[in-house]
Amino acid sequence: MTVVSPDEGGCRRELAFGPGARQTVITKTAAAQRVADGLEVVALGGLSEFGLNTMAISWGSTTVLVDAGVMFPDAELPGVDLITPDLAYLEQQGRRVAALILTHGHEDHIGAVPHVLPLVDGPVYGTPLTLALVGPKLEEHGLDLDGRLVPIGPGDEITVGELAIEFLHVTHSMPGCVALAIRTPVGTIVHTGDFKIDHTPLDGVHFDVHRFAELGASGVLALFADSTNIERPGVTGSEQDVVAAFEEIFASTTGMIVVTAFATSIYRMQILADLAVRFGRKVAFVGRGMVENSQIAQRLGHLRIPAGVLIRDTDVRNHPPRQVLCITTGSQGEPMAALSRIAIDDHRHVSIGPDDRVVFSARVIPGHERAVDRVVNHLARRGCQIVDQTTKLVHVSGHGSEEELKLMLTLARPRCFVPIHGEYRQRARYARLAERIASPPSWRADVILADNGDILRFDRGGGSIVGRAPAGRVLIDGSGAGEVGDEVLRDRRHLAEDGLVVPMLAINKQTGNLEGAPEVVTRALVLEPDHEDLLREAVRIITEAVASAGLEERTDSGLMKQKIRVELRRFFRKRTGRRPLVLPLIMEI
Amino acid sequence: MTVVSPDEGGCRRELAFGPGARQTVITKTAAAQRVADGLEVVALGGLSEFGLNTMAISWGSTTVLVDAGVMFPDAELPGVDLITPDLAYLEQQGRRVAALILTHGHEDHIGAVPHVLPLVDGPVYGTPLTLALVGPKLEEHGLDLDGRLVPIGPGDEITVGELAIEFLHVTHSMPGCVALAIRTPVGTIVHTGDFKIDHTPLDGVHFDVHRFAELGASGVLALFADSTNIERPGVTGSEQDVVAAFEEIFASTTGMIVVTAFATSIYRMQILADLAVRFGRKVAFVGRGMVENSQIAQRLGHLRIPAGVLIRDTDVRNHPPRQVLCITTGSQGEPMAALSRIAIDDHRHVSIGPDDRVVFSARVIPGHERAVDRVVNHLARRGCQIVDQTTKLVHVSGHGSEEELKLMLTLARPRCFVPIHGEYRQRARYARLAERIASPPSWRADVILADNGDILRFDRGGGSIVGRAPAGRVLIDGSGAGEVGDEVLRDRRHLAEDGLVVPMLAINKQTGNLEGAPEVVTRALVLEPDHEDLLREAVRIITEAVASAGLEERTDSGLMKQKIRVELRRFFRKRTGRRPLVLPLIMEI
Repeated sequence: MTVVSPDEGGCRRELAFGPGARQTVITKTAAAQRVADGLEVVALGGLSEFGLNTMAISWGSTTVLVDAGVMFPDAELPGVDLITPDLAYLEQQGRRVAALILTHGHEDHIGAVPHVLPLVDGPVYGTPLTLALVGPKLEEHGLDLDGRLVPIGPGDEITVGELAIEFLHVTHSMPGCVALAIRTPVGTIVHTGDFKIDHTPLDGVHFDVHRFAELGASGVLALFADSTNIERPGVTGSEQDVVAAFEEIFASTTGMIVVTAFATSIYRMQILADLAVRFGRKVAFVGRGMVENSQIAQRLGHLRIPAGVLIRDTDVRNHPPRQVLCITTGSQGEPMAALSRIAIDDHRHVSIGPDDRVVFSARVIPGHERAVDRVVNHLARRGCQIVDQTTKLVHVSGHGSEEELKLMLTLARPRCFVPIHGEYRQRARYARLAERIASPPSWRADVILADNGDILRFDRGGGSIVGRAPAGRVLIDGSGAGEVGDEVLRDRRHLAEDGLVVPMLAINKQTGNLEGAPEVVTRALVLEPDHEDLLREAVRIITEAVASAGLEERTDSGLMKQKIRVELRRFFRKRTGRRPLVLPLIMEI
Repeated sequence: MTVVSPDEGGCRRELAFGPGARQTVITKTAAAQRVADGLEVVALGGLSEFGLNTMAISWGSTTVLVDAGVMFPDAELPGVDLITPDLAYLEQQGRRVAALILTHGHEDHIGAVPHVLPLVDGPVYGTPLTLALVGPKLEEHGLDLDGRLVPIGPGDEITVGELAIEFLHVTHSMPGCVALAIRTPVGTIVHTGDFKIDHTPLDGVHFDVHRFAELGASGVLALFADSTNIERPGVTGSEQDVVAAFEEIFASTTGMIVVTAFATSIYRMQILADLAVRFGRKVAFVGRGMVENSQIAQRLGHLRIPAGVLIRDTDVRNHPPRQVLCITTGSQGEPMAALSRIAIDDHRHVSIGPDDRVVFSARVIPGHERAVDRVVNHLARRGCQIVDQTTKLVHVSGHGSEEELKLMLTLARPRCFVPIHGEYRQRARYARLAERIASPPSWRADVILADNGDILRFDRGGGSIVGRAPAGRVLIDGSGAGEVGDEVLRDRRHLAEDGLVVPMLAINKQTGNLEGAPEVVTRALVLEPDHEDLLREAVRIITEAVASAGLEERTDSGLMKQKIRVELRRFFRKRTGRRPLVLPLIMEI
């Protein structure tokens, strides 16, 4: 493995990290002089929402960033593809990031890596799987980090300025997840990343409860802990808990089995592939994310599928349905994902019918319920059976529930406790719980309920909120629609400069026909004399987009909005050079 | 009680309906000659969605309408207040409705009564509670039905043309619910309305399982049955099942208890009022719907609260919080509802703090999850404890689960089975279940999976889909915003005629400040010379709306959208006489 320190001019040092080895990689910061002593922590995302997880930790002039996550907009922001954290806190203070530390490879922790890199001078640390998942993102953005991607493993320790960062293995819904113990001149802070305590991990690598206990015994200044599932009583359960339900599904399905999950659900992939082997089915990964990630997981040894079992999506129709398992993208009802296309019989290689069974093996991210409902309805019209969490245990969360979160607090026994990852309701609940658990005389912890942008300062005695830094969201258009390199940041400047296009159409929900001609409203888009021509053409494009869609697609406003957005965005970019925000308004009447 | 037949010129006949009495009220149709014999059934809503429940049943020229329900738009239709069924099927064929039959008083069954009345020549039948809940709607629309509201009770039978309609008591989440047995010249059809089988009904009135059994034994041509909860295994449970959880809440809460529920949850009101008496709390109904409906329920004897227990919302602050129970509207996160205002500390009479407890005693209607999440987060910031279904049994559904739906099918033993009330997925699931239950040789039923607008024809031998009628949705603006009598139907004509106003603003999610000036896009709204002035004024109104809102309101895009919609709608109506569709676009950055 290769480690590069930024001040070594790209020189590579070879290090052999064995399992359990605790090695040290030194990364000196580019600007090592202290601006002001003291430990400052600011969350730039993840403390008012699920997603956007991004935290800046600074000692003097040395800043490390923990994670750089995105959020996916829901139905309330239909004109936007992606949300990333606002980095003004770093930009305005001229802070350079000496190291970007990634806890694991979920989108809400690594999705914004390309967007934060301009501020990062040093390496990007993560487990091999995490870094491998970052790879395609960098490629998409034409970024080549050369040797700056530095793989680490549990037990490793790196030094960034006066910060020493140790990685601890935690169990979650995918392999290669770590928590962080960051030793600073004023004490140790622990950042849990995302975790649950899985006592029967699929890969046999246990949650490192012993190291957390050691850290707690030797004194933790502050614990930053995942609050996601604090509202669930008890414990979350093992990834393996889904096996029984899937065995039943494999044993009883006479047609094809289609399972949709997050593309990072690598344990789920392994469980399904193992069952496919047992029940004599071929395995096809369907959808770009699934294909890419399954290849990465296989390459790194996290996913093992015997020879002859894996087939391409193009081969699905060459096998009898009862011998096929498809694992597809689309668990959130994303309009362009494989399952959404399959559901309206519009996928090039996969189609389903009455004997087949479709399994939703993922939770629905809040705000995506209606999109998933629509996909389920389309699937129901194909006659297939549909299985989801409400009827069978086909999904287990990767986040610890109340009892696991209590245990984490007790293990770490921190001087200060800061709940992270969640909306206010979850963090407030964990905070209240902490006040009961860490109660005098045996132990007293200060509970700090911080929001995004709150500046936390710590000294040996404890910590508090000392001020506010800017924090917010950047809305991004153009990713995920196959328009690589054409990203547009949406903030007030772009609203004004690039303009707005609102295509309005009324579609008869029964016939799928347009009711009247579509209309297009624009603002600040074109002042050219051919404005009227442009609008006429835009109307034609909308009309054609509707006409070329199937009945089911036309009567699904979610799918049509996305189709019209993509077409109009392309049209206006080509004709005007601008990238307006396209916000389709579809009335189903 | 008063019954009026339309052909009697408004003459009233007094009938005394005792409990259990099976009496006959005759209503002759205005146009009694047969156009074509045969039984025709068309659902105008409720078969592609939850809500909009409306079904036309015709024998020759005699048409009765069963229910007239609305739907509430979710976040995907932010410019619209209400959705009603399209009545083109009736209008185009010149069909007049001889009787409107209401199964119970939920909005998704009675909300569109004012909108269908122009097509109804005859009486509106419903239980006294159902009709009492229709009352305020008629008043709002300035409608006076004089004696055409005809109360019926379980066991009653009415005759409309050659149709004899019997009412059967069913249990649901409110009192006064009936199913229908409609005797036609070709056989009996049973319409379940909404039901579950509650063996311990709060008012002691049991689901009439005996009458359903008799009907099944004597032969049912077709059963139309509620599919809502077919995806839930087992049985739903009694309304009384929530008592234990609420006892715990009443016993352990040191501050005020605030419970939000549907305004029609009259059983829930009774359970809560009884507990309030036991635990020494006063009861305040908060929010217009709660106040109105609790008064109606008390007047009709469905809700009994001892003297001295009930207080007005204006009196809440004159009692110690530990002696108060508030029952409020807002369980779906509706921006203008009482709980949403309380949550941001913007309610005139009720404010909550750390010792108080807020209980969400309702399911979240799909599509409203994010709105509810936002309210919960605001409440969490007030420091109060929040209880919902996920942690305690504080809500029980009113719809029967799988086992109850199986039983209904077995009781009725119909020749044809048509699942109703639900999206395709639910109806398809009930249909599949029915194919297993009603299997030869013992019994064979034809299962008809119909969509809205499918024309079902029945003869003695059975039924089938014979054609398609127009069916769809009408979008309505202006109700629920305190703008009585200013309703606008939204269809393609209005989109073109009244125009569109899209206010665009960017709000900093952290500071709540406007980022840059708001902008306003309009279409086909004003051609007057003062167009520019109008837009400038609109911008000023938006800016003021933001400025006059509190920080929490400003950073809640759901609340701000509603506020800006109401203000701009009022402004444009006043200044231009038009009623444009106002579709605010708020970017939280």
